[in-house]
Amino acid sequence: MVTLINHFTVKGDTAEFEQVFAASSEFMVEQPGFVSHRLVRSLRTPGSYVNIAEWESAAAHQAVVRGPGFAEHINGLANLASVEPDLYTEVLGRVADGA
Amino acid sequence: MVTLINHFTVKGDTAEFEQVFAASSEFMVEQPGFVSHRLVRSLRTPGSYVNIAEWESAAAHQAVVRGPGFAEHINGLANLASVEPDLYTEVLGRVADGA
Repeated sequence: MVTLINHFTVKGDTAEFEQVFAASSEFMVEQPGFVSHRLVRSLRTPGSYVNIAEWESAAAHQAVVRGPGFAEHINGLANLASVEPDLYTEVLGRVADGA
Repeated sequence: MVTLINHFTVKGDTAEFEQVFAASSEFMVEQPGFVSHRLVRSLRTPGSYVNIAEWESAAAHQAVVRGPGFAEHINGLANLASVEPDLYTEVLGRVADGA
């Protein structure tokens, strides 16, 4: 499992960004190797969003990035926001004792 | 529920950073309002780490940040890495149909 973290800084209308992102999410959910994602919005920094996505492997994610349809989605997002993606592996994870 | 995302760029020894972070994790797990966290390491960018933590509320997280013990831990990390924390709320979340 790998984690894709993508930091978006929206330049214009955040409602439009969220709408375009939702369409992109519909596309990603259907791709082989996709596990889950969460889009979160900063409570403090206007226009700052982070997408945290789990993929079965870096290879599965790369295949989607290089495959048909992806460029259209990422370009739609890049028209509205700066995009800073990187791929990560878990080092440490903890859950509260009571959770 | 709020998500704390903290991006660390380690300047020196990553093994030392991971060790100091693990001690900080032990501390955070015991704090009221802590739900869970994951520390992930970039597969592409040496020294780049992200901590993704869930807290019951922004108020609970703030109480810990302002309370006893926190400064010592964050200063220990800040001696080894640049620290860029921000607090987020979920906009959208999806899980693969088969997951």
